[in-house]
Amino acid sequence: MTAFGFTLHANDGAARRGQVMTAHGSFETPAFMPVGTAATVKAMTPEWVAETGAECILGNTYHLMLRPTAERIHALGGLHTFMNWPGPILTDSGGFQVMSLTDLRKLTENGVRFRSHIDGSYHDLTPERSMDIQRMLDADITMVLDECTKFPCEKDEAAASMALSMRWAQRCRDAFDARPGCGLFGIVQGSIYEDLRHESVQALTDIGFDGYAVGGLAVGEGHEMMLKVLDFTMPSLPQDKPRYLMGVGKPDDLVAAVARGIDMFDCVLPTRSGRTNQAFTRRGTVNMRNTRHKDDARPLDADCACYTCQTYSRAYVHHLVMAKEILGMMLLTRHNLHYYQELMSDMRSAIESGTFAAFQKAFAAEYTDGDIALT
Amino acid sequence: MTAFGFTLHANDGAARRGQVMTAHGSFETPAFMPVGTAATVKAMTPEWVAETGAECILGNTYHLMLRPTAERIHALGGLHTFMNWPGPILTDSGGFQVMSLTDLRKLTENGVRFRSHIDGSYHDLTPERSMDIQRMLDADITMVLDECTKFPCEKDEAAASMALSMRWAQRCRDAFDARPGCGLFGIVQGSIYEDLRHESVQALTDIGFDGYAVGGLAVGEGHEMMLKVLDFTMPSLPQDKPRYLMGVGKPDDLVAAVARGIDMFDCVLPTRSGRTNQAFTRRGTVNMRNTRHKDDARPLDADCACYTCQTYSRAYVHHLVMAKEILGMMLLTRHNLHYYQELMSDMRSAIESGTFAAFQKAFAAEYTDGDIALT
Repeated sequence: MTAFGFTLHANDGAARRGQVMTAHGSFETPAFMPVGTAATVKAMTPEWVAETGAECILGNTYHLMLRPTAERIHALGGLHTFMNWPGPILTDSGGFQVMSLTDLRKLTENGVRFRSHIDGSYHDLTPERSMDIQRMLDADITMVLDECTKFPCEKDEAAASMALSMRWAQRCRDAFDARPGCGLFGIVQGSIYEDLRHESVQALTDIGFDGYAVGGLAVGEGHEMMLKVLDFTMPSLPQDKPRYLMGVGKPDDLVAAVARGIDMFDCVLPTRSGRTNQAFTRRGTVNMRNTRHKDDARPLDADCACYTCQTYSRAYVHHLVMAKEILGMMLLTRHNLHYYQELMSDMRSAIESGTFAAFQKAFAAEYTDGDIALT
Repeated sequence: MTAFGFTLHANDGAARRGQVMTAHGSFETPAFMPVGTAATVKAMTPEWVAETGAECILGNTYHLMLRPTAERIHALGGLHTFMNWPGPILTDSGGFQVMSLTDLRKLTENGVRFRSHIDGSYHDLTPERSMDIQRMLDADITMVLDECTKFPCEKDEAAASMALSMRWAQRCRDAFDARPGCGLFGIVQGSIYEDLRHESVQALTDIGFDGYAVGGLAVGEGHEMMLKVLDFTMPSLPQDKPRYLMGVGKPDDLVAAVARGIDMFDCVLPTRSGRTNQAFTRRGTVNMRNTRHKDDARPLDADCACYTCQTYSRAYVHHLVMAKEILGMMLLTRHNLHYYQELMSDMRSAIESGTFAAFQKAFAAEYTDGDIALT
């Protein structure tokens, strides 16, 4: 069994080209992890996910602990076996979704008590319980339980929340059952406050983790503010561990964050967009319900090597989304994940060849954040 | 280009083993055609449909004429190109769904005027228009426009309706543009009345078609009544043309109808069931929402060679359907279509080896029409 580890292959400015080794194989970084919320990357088979180039996926502790339960997945051989994904899996701690998806919840020093959105049953999520759930899921990368502050957040509230997250991080470290090839990541909090972010990094590195995530971003602060936080946070993170920007993001977010030294991302955007008629292209997003597509025999993106673009016309994809056909969601999700993985692959190549700045410039010249009229 | 044709390879009692040749390739009979209503077999890729063993699929004129329109599909290269199904396609006439899906419709000698369920627009469907639509779709097998009587139906009403359908059949034959490799099928009507059915067969064979469908069944008359109608209708149909039982059916319907000389079937049951948590097995149907599956690591059917059964546990499929995940519909549809195609393949083998009676007996001993508790 491989030991959990990170190898840094190359730097290009602050951008990093590396590899993460886990119990279920390795993945190249910078990496984008598709989100497999309820033990499925929605509207995709695992084979299709792998075909896009994805090597590591994310599972959501909150959803899985409620249904089918971590105990059941454990008894069935773990999440990899359950969902037929043999590669690395990162699971979140459950904290973020407890905060965002449940109305009735009570936060204490010990943890958070909440009611299931499925059946109203009560559950306690503590640092120790989160570690135990992620162990039962057989996560290759386990995330500490933290509190993710809303935006905006007053500084004293952000400080108190961050301090609680750091105490929970220590409890997670203590409770984490270090299985071979499996790593535990700490999460930097502190909202938009530079001194709080540094304090959080110090607390986490004092404890010592296998990787460091930047949390509390992509919560409404906007692209520029997110980059500002990364600008003052990233330099203080250890060079020899992977860095993960949680819940991010749009293609331009990914490029800018890689430029600042982020190695890993996850986001529901490509999959959710695939179920809401939106296609990603190198120039921007395209609304496939637009009637301009209805007679168009050309592929969505002539330069795209994905199954959807190699097989179907824009007119057909447009027809499927207008008719609300499941195949429309399948085809767009497959295309969008392919686009994201190709973007990551292009960034990895650029870093390897020391041309990331040029890549970034070319990307910015071509890409528009928002819907475009496809020509 | 192949000429449209039918070769009868073997008989076993009344059961027939044959092959239909079309412009887009041949298919073995008895055949089950998955339904691709809106230019997609729901929740399936065309590659998956082919992988189940299906060789010919069905498209619905009613849905396609309204959206994206036959004119648009024609301009985009026809239905095969549009939906990426290179094999044979049979299209229905649109008549059945005009009658069952629209509230506002007016039937005259000329045809039927109706309002679209999508946008309320008015449309006329006449024998000539139906032929033109199916030509634009590039159907390999075109169906005549007919009126499908409800069940029960008084004899005088059934007689008048059948007579109208026969006049429309002649108009379809006259209007049909015989493209190379493409055939036109007549549809026998007459409800449950033996003399009307014989009269209908006589009218159709006088006109002359490339195949003959039995219509007006599977409309509520029940399994036994359906077989009774087949018993007195089938012997009068030409031996040298394919016979198609429209909209049928359950596995036991298929076996009983093949025993009576039917060569072709279509039905939404395997695909619709796949989207409503129902799995077909050799012993009967299984409700995958049943909690008995929740801890079951075994495949749905250990003897099934489909992707779903080869890859996932009952517990996982149960989880997906409970969580209303799209992948659950994809996996169950794929399994159900595989089950149907395997049933057809088994019947073809039995007819070839002259053991169809034994097959039918073994099938009846194992299969229960209805939900079973899977062991």
